Order: sequence, then C-alpha cells, then structure tokens
Amino acid sequence: MKYSYISHLYCPKCAATYDHNQVNQLCECGSPLLVDYNLKELSQHLSKEDIINRTSDLWRYHELLPVQKKENVITLGEGMTPLLQMQRIGRDMDIPNLLMKDEGIIPTGSFKARGAAVGVSKAKELGVEDLAMPTNGNAGAAWGLYSTRAGIRSTIVMPEDAPKITRNEVAISGANLYIINGLISDAGKVVSEAVKERNLFDASTLKEPYRIEGKKTMGLEIAEQLNWKMPDVILYPTGGGVGIIGIYKALTELKELGWMDEDLPRLVAVQAEDCAPIVKAWQERKEESEFWKNSSTVAFGINVPKAIGDFLVLDALYKTDGCAIAIDDEAILHEQEKIASLEGAFVCPEGAATFVAARRLRKSGWIKEHEVVVALNTGMGIKYPDTVSVNVPTIEIGDKI
Amino acid sequence: MKYSYISHLYCPKCAATYDHNQVNQLCECGSPLLVDYNLKELSQHLSKEDIINRTSDLWRYHELLPVQKKENVITLGEGMTPLLQMQRIGRDMDIPNLLMKDEGIIPTGSFKARGAAVGVSKAKELGVEDLAMPTNGNAGAAWGLYSTRAGIRSTIVMPEDAPKITRNEVAISGANLYIINGLISDAGKVVSEAVKERNLFDASTLKEPYRIEGKKTMGLEIAEQLNWKMPDVILYPTGGGVGIIGIYKALTELKELGWMDEDLPRLVAVQAEDCAPIVKAWQERKEESEFWKNSSTVAFGINVPKAIGDFLVLDALYKTDGCAIAIDDEAILHEQEKIASLEGAFVCPEGAATFVAARRLRKSGWIKEHEVVVALNTGMGIKYPDTVSVNVPTIEIGDKI
Repeated sequence: MKYSYISHLYCPKCAATYDHNQVNQLCECGSPLLVDYNLKELSQHLSKEDIINRTSDLWRYHELLPVQKKENVITLGEGMTPLLQMQRIGRDMDIPNLLMKDEGIIPTGSFKARGAAVGVSKAKELGVEDLAMPTNGNAGAAWGLYSTRAGIRSTIVMPEDAPKITRNEVAISGANLYIINGLISDAGKVVSEAVKERNLFDASTLKEPYRIEGKKTMGLEIAEQLNWKMPDVILYPTGGGVGIIGIYKALTELKELGWMDEDLPRLVAVQAEDCAPIVKAWQERKEESEFWKNSSTVAFGINVPKAIGDFLVLDALYKTDGCAIAIDDEAILHEQEKIASLEGAFVCPEGAATFVAARRLRKSGWIKEHEVVVALNTGMGIKYPDTVSVNVPTIEIGDKI
Repeated sequence: MKYSYISHLYCPKCAATYDHNQVNQLCECGSPLLVDYNLKELSQHLSKEDIINRTSDLWRYHELLPVQKKENVITLGEGMTPLLQMQRIGRDMDIPNLLMKDEGIIPTGSFKARGAAVGVSKAKELGVEDLAMPTNGNAGAAWGLYSTRAGIRSTIVMPEDAPKITRNEVAISGANLYIINGLISDAGKVVSEAVKERNLFDASTLKEPYRIEGKKTMGLEIAEQLNWKMPDVILYPTGGGVGIIGIYKALTELKELGWMDEDLPRLVAVQAEDCAPIVKAWQERKEESEFWKNSSTVAFGINVPKAIGDFLVLDALYKTDGCAIAIDDEAILHEQEKIASLEGAFVCPEGAATFVAARRLRKSGWIKEHEVVVALNTGMGIKYPDTVSVNVPTIEIGDKI
C-alpha cells in the first residue's frame, strides 16, 4: 500500500508528460501541468469506508495527493472544514437545501492554506530550498507560514494595497517580504526576474503543479460530507480559479475510482462585476479569457484580470453545464451583512458573492427549488475587517442601556 | 440511549443543587454552578471507541454535554482543533514532546466559540430569548454570532479599547452593541442593571453554568487526540479561567467514566506580569485571589483582575500539583515572533505566553525533559494584528529584489 498513487504530470494543452520526481514548473508549451494518479490500482486497494477513521484534516486523502512519503507532510491541521446548513438565508432565497463550505475554519483563515500545505510539502519532498511568489495577500500569508514550517526560505512580493493583516502574517513568518508600489502583475514581474536570476522555485499560481492538488481536497470533502452523493450545484468565487479546477478534478477522480456514479454538479464561477473576464468568455462561449483592464472590487481575492488557468475553468463550466455570473460590490456587501445577521457567520466578501449568485440564479430559475446547493466561503470575514461599516453607540460610565 | 446524560446542577461552594430544566444563573450563595452527569449510567452505554466515527466537532461528545435534544444544537462547525507537534521550538526550549492545541482553527478564530456554542444551544433549549453580557472582545464576538444563529437577541457591552476586529464581528452579527468609555468592570455594571431591569439572561463569564461545558471539550479532545493518554503538563493562559476549570472537569469525568486511569496532568495557569491575581494567590497558597489594581497587558484576553471562578482555578492547580506563573509583555511578544518564524504558526499573545511559561518551567526543572507538554493557544494572531511590528522594504515598479 503506497502513501501516494501519483503516476506522472501531464499537460492539459499539448499532452506532453513529465516526471513527478523532478522539479517542474510550466509545460514547455506554457500551460500549467496537472497531476495524474494510478486510479485503477488505487481502486483495488482503497474503499471510501477506509477513510472514515482517519485524522480530520486533508491528509486523510493522502493516496490522492502527490506527497509520496508521510514524513514530508507539512501540516498546521488544515482541512475537513465544516459544511454548514444555511436554513434561514436559504429560506430567504427559496433554496431550502443551501449549504456553506466554510473555508474560514482553517490555518491562516483562508482556503489558501490547502494549496500551501500540499504545495510546500511536495516542494520539500523534491528538495526545494528557496521559493518565491507574488500575492494579493492570503496566498502569501499561507505560503510564507507553511514554508517556514517546512524550513524553506520564501520571498514574497505584495502590492501596497493588499489587506494589512496578510502583510502582518507574512512578516511574522520570517519570509523575505517586499511591498511593491504597484499591482499584483507588477509584483509578478519582479518575482519572475528574481526566479530566473537566482534559480528560485516559482510558487506563483499554477506555475507549479501541486497547489491545485491541495485545493482539490475541497471537492473530496464536500463529497464525503454529503455521504458520497454529488450536490446539484457548487458556487465558487473565481479569481485565479484554482479551486474550481481542483473541485472539478476531485469529483472526476472520484468517479474514475468508482466511489460515485452520479453526474457532476453544475459548477458556477462567481466573479465581480468590475473584474469578470471568465464571465465574458463564458458568455461568448470562448475557450480562453481576455485581460480585464482597470479591474476593481471589494472582494480582493478575486481581483484577477487574466488567470493563467482560465481555459481549465471554462472547460469545467462547459463540461458540467455550469455557468459564470458577475456580482456588483454593493450586492456583495449587502449580502455579507445579511449572512451574518441571519446565520451568525461572518464570511469574506468573496464568499458573500457566491450567495448573491445563488440568489440570482434561483430567481432566474437556473437553480431549482429543491436542488442541493453548496456555496463556497473562501475565508474569514475578519481578514478584511474594513469591509464592515461599524456605527455603534458609545456610552459613559453610569449610563443605562 | 440519551443524547445527554446531564443529571443536575450543583454548587461547588455550598453544595446546593438545582434543576437543569430551569433557567439558572449563580447559586444563591453567589458561587458559579457546575453541571453534573450520570457518568455511571453513561459508562454502561458508551465506550471511547464509539466516538471515533463521529463528526469532527465538539458535539461528538454530546453525552457529556448539557444539551438534551439534538435539534437544539447551534453549530458553526466548532471543535476538534488540531493538536500540533512543535518540534523546532520544542528543541529550542529542550522539550522534545511539545504540542500545541491550536484554538485559532475554530469559528470566530478563538476558543470562545466553544463556550458560546454550548452556552447558546442550552439557552435556546431552556427558552431564553434575550441575553446580555460584557466582553473584552472575543467572547462577545462568539456569543453575538452564535446568538444570532440561534435566533436569540443579544446585548453586548464592550470597552472602547477592546480589539477593533471583535467590534466588527459583534456589529455585523446584528447584536445590540454598546461601546463603553471605561473598563470591562464598568461594562459589567451596565449589563447587571439591564439584566435586572429587563429580565435578560445574564451570559457573563460563569454567571450561567454551560459555557464551562463548552470549554471542557478542549480537555476531551486533548485526551482523544493523545489516544486517551494523559499528557504530563497542560499550560493555559488564565484570565477568567473557564478553560482551565473546564479541562480539569473534563479529565476528571473521563477518569470517572473509566476511560483513563492515569494521574491528571499538572495544570499550569499562565498570567501576565501586570495582571497576576491567580499567581499571587497560588504563591500564598490561598483559596481565592484578590482584585489586581491597574492591571495591564498586551494579552488582552487575560486582563482579568478578579475572576469569579478563581477558587475553582486554584483548586485545580492544587489538586494536580500544578503551578501558576506570570510572564512579562516583552517576553510574550518576543515568543510570538519566535513561534511564527520557527513553526509557521501565528498565535495570539495569550497563546505565546504559555510557550514562555513552558520555557521557564523547563529551565527551572519543573518540567522534565521527556514530559509530554501541551501549550494551549486560545486564538489566531490576526485577531490583534497590531501586536506585530511590521517593517518591510517598499520597492517601485522596475526595481529588482
């Protein structure tokens, strides 16, 4: 019984294959690489019942993850986040079977911990000693802290207006942090040059093949938490899109394993109105998106004007009869408050966007009344506390309330 | 098979008993009330092996919790937080078996979620519709959000200098939030008056008997995560002390159940140098503490000058051959950085204090080299981001790093 059933890396664009025992970045053709597993062999050795007694973190699925030796696992206890019933807000939008996968309940308070845990563990296994990446905040916080735990040096470049709290997280991790007076794309250029000159490992989104395997575990968990039944719809806030690609990959692998035999859920890519390249491409039935100029949104994590994995996101939408939808900032902030005041959950703006999307898709009839709908909240609301406007009475000693 | 084996409430001071089917606050003698269970009966119906397959939250121990009907459980997925190996910092302080129970990986990012989940669920079961409490921040955030989830109205009074993020959490929950230009003790007086005049349920620390049952689950989880073996030492940052009382109660109940038969771990109450009433009382072998004047510390959550349950904390220390120790703010902040840069974990100052305590107690020989030591981190570092001093180079577009 092997710890991992990884077989090789392959390019989803040109079909080239690569050895997973070597350090790899992009395919020679420029596409991200994906991980393949010996699923037939695994299906003879593992059943879904074997999973039940395992630790309540994402490493419970280690056969479907790329790390080959248990001692290389770097963990802060990430995964098996709650799948919560959202009855009140579900009633409010006429979706009685509304669930939220709450990725705030995870180290560093955002789903980026999954990609970092698996990506850093595999980097360590491959002997990486030095990595670099640009970040809009949460990914840098996660990769900085997990790299430190692995004993890997990290260099992280972050735009000046990235959330303050994530800056503190990177700084305290001991990473080499640089703040750039520019955008994430400018940070990316600085990183690319440093990578070339100093032979660093490039941990940018999808420039290494393993982050997506960490994100994949969200799909595995949703399946297990629903007793290995597919939901009807999963809504995902889409910036780089690694999570939606990962969820699609996870559910496809579970079907290949023979653990599930229903149709895949319809996947929904939720974007912000002023940064909606995937939505535009989907509306035009294109295979790739175009760069979105002057993008802006309060949902910082989905401010990605052109995703390197856009073609994989769009493919997942087409293959599952899913859709893409753009939400305005005002509706996002309004929904964030509504979720807190109806359900007691303080979600991040990106997470709130998926609820607005569910509400609108139900209204248009795209979501049917009794469908099982999973909204993905990618992080804690407290990571960007300034999105909440607080207007509270101040009293003096001796006052009554 | 009952959902809960609760039998009654009792006073640990005067031994009076109360009916758990009524709403109760303090004992008539002024002491907090504790919950008792039919452990003999339970031991015939439940074994520790039965727990393994249950949901990975604190409700897996429902027989040992006070909520009698499953439908009254209010949950955001709290509990089963990671118990992490801390090898590097353990080596650094010559405690190779150092573990951290990380209570940051929980809804609202602090261990207060446990007390709120169980306290609010039981309040709902008893028909409470309106509750009130003073708070230094994290407890208010948790009780505000869980009350909302339960459909209970909450009134929360918070000092002006409580952490800003917790103010946002309470505000967005829809609670009636008041900021008082004063201290937590002033907030407490305002709440007491409102409770009397408007017949509200008083959810202040230990003024209702069920918060402690939620905190107790930290002890149950530590036991289960160590395969039902006691650690040698547990260090706990002690303000109101509900957690240390809860852990002591949990481990005592597990012994009574016959699930564990070793000696209890030595419990350590860790306080701040400028707010150390329990330490002073312990040094003087007293049964109660005195009010600590002009208390102050960066570890906001343990700034409690006189805890209503002080006698229970001290009793737990004496009964387990534990101790109490005070740590200065400078050492706390230094250790917080050290933990992050060695282990990749961004703990709160209260959590960092327990690591300083472990370090000092190892140096003095009170902790022996090969003992299994659990440090309790009560929340995420990002809840008070300003404790981290960030001094980062800013670069311009086109600069190299």
